[in-house]
Amino acid sequence: MHVAIIGIGLIGGSVARDLRRTGFAARLTGVGSSPERAQIAQDLGLVDRVTDLAIAVREADLVVLAIPVDRIVRLLPQVMDLVTDRQTVTDMGSTKKAIVESIARHPRRRRFVASHPMAGTENSGPAAALDRLFENKVAVLCDLEQSAPDAARTVEALYAALGMRLVRMDAATHDLHAAYVSHLSHVASYALALATLEKEKDDNAIFALAGGGFASTARLAKSAPDMWVPIFRQNRTALLDAIDAYQRQLQALRTAIDANDESAMRTLIEEANQIRRILR
Amino acid sequence: MHVAIIGIGLIGGSVARDLRRTGFAARLTGVGSSPERAQIAQDLGLVDRVTDLAIAVREADLVVLAIPVDRIVRLLPQVMDLVTDRQTVTDMGSTKKAIVESIARHPRRRRFVASHPMAGTENSGPAAALDRLFENKVAVLCDLEQSAPDAARTVEALYAALGMRLVRMDAATHDLHAAYVSHLSHVASYALALATLEKEKDDNAIFALAGGGFASTARLAKSAPDMWVPIFRQNRTALLDAIDAYQRQLQALRTAIDANDESAMRTLIEEANQIRRILR
Repeated sequence: MHVAIIGIGLIGGSVARDLRRTGFAARLTGVGSSPERAQIAQDLGLVDRVTDLAIAVREADLVVLAIPVDRIVRLLPQVMDLVTDRQTVTDMGSTKKAIVESIARHPRRRRFVASHPMAGTENSGPAAALDRLFENKVAVLCDLEQSAPDAARTVEALYAALGMRLVRMDAATHDLHAAYVSHLSHVASYALALATLEKEKDDNAIFALAGGGFASTARLAKSAPDMWVPIFRQNRTALLDAIDAYQRQLQALRTAIDANDESAMRTLIEEANQIRRILR
Repeated sequence: MHVAIIGIGLIGGSVARDLRRTGFAARLTGVGSSPERAQIAQDLGLVDRVTDLAIAVREADLVVLAIPVDRIVRLLPQVMDLVTDRQTVTDMGSTKKAIVESIARHPRRRRFVASHPMAGTENSGPAAALDRLFENKVAVLCDLEQSAPDAARTVEALYAALGMRLVRMDAATHDLHAAYVSHLSHVASYALALATLEKEKDDNAIFALAGGGFASTARLAKSAPDMWVPIFRQNRTALLDAIDAYQRQLQALRTAIDANDESAMRTLIEEANQIRRILR
């Protein structure tokens, strides 16, 4: 199969590595967001060639959009204008509702499969691409009833090649879940980094004791604004709901600590410990 | 050297494994918080024998308290009553001010060295003990001017055997730093677990999409109340200051998201990204 990857950064580059290794893609074409990044992707051998969007889309069996979600919303209608009934298009964006809405009434809508592989790191760019980044993780397919069955099968085969487990849900449900278990984690981590960095202005040794616990909780705060600002904007309503829930729980913890209320602290921590059911 | 470890859970058990492996301890005595845990520690071969506090302290060259900080404050004065000028006592608690204050006027104060190895996992108990848990991490020694030079040297040698880098500061500075880079991370993680678990009551599939980012940020929420409630209580003032700073930053992010203010979001995220200076 000939696969065109639009955006050959961390996600697109990692997809390219796995599709080449597994033989899923006989041919890989990349489209870079800048000539510099395209050159790095080609130098790294991630794709067979880089070219412009129109050529890449026209020649591909499968087009994968692996770019920030604001750029997906702008570019996807143009891509759909170019494809025929023999071709399939998918995206790997972290939001789904705004993306499916961007082509809701497009005559080629059924050639598109909305998807979201739940994998990544805090790094970005083609040099950050990894082998087996997706293995044993979850990929979400959304609103499948609006996709042609053969297009859905092609994208299912793509994620099977990446070693992912599939979950199916509608786009609105995806965005609500992602707000809680992915986007909120990033907000919490950014706030932790900001609070400690602010303290560092008064006390430049504040990080002398930073260990594994801090590293784990603040890791996501390294994530790039080009990716995350558009996600926060597109998933604003669900994310605000999640932040409100988070602020209420944080305030409950603060109130218990302020009151030096041992029993209230213990109750909250024991409840939080239930996360062991989910995270083993 | 004969080392007595009071509390043979994750920390005490891991210390025992390393001190035996490196040969630092020729003999290891454990004191368990319960007969069941003491039996597990003995069955695992972590210590040569378990016995009661008075016997263990009397026979040891070095006594290590590796128990929750509320129990350190209660037990440390009793331990100091038992030791002679040939013996050394240290603790591994995550707070330092309340602990040094608990024996500030004790006639044997100079035999005590306040310390905090910045290492751990979200698990607890002797079965959670690990080899090389402390390697290449930081141990803090506090208020060293109040310890006898030979006692300080003994504890420095202990941490050298564990492979740790040493940092020296006063107890109040330690507690302030630990509030930001360790205790606040736990509060933020508990709140994240609570908010998502609360959502799960309405929507039992909320965790379908939980991936590596969520796991990283919520990992510390598995940590046990027996350890963390006493830390929050003893470091209440510094921790409330850190939580206030965190809440302000969280609110700044929320305001930017609510206003759909792309430039404000980008500025905050770029500032948070500066954490890359600290976390590589």
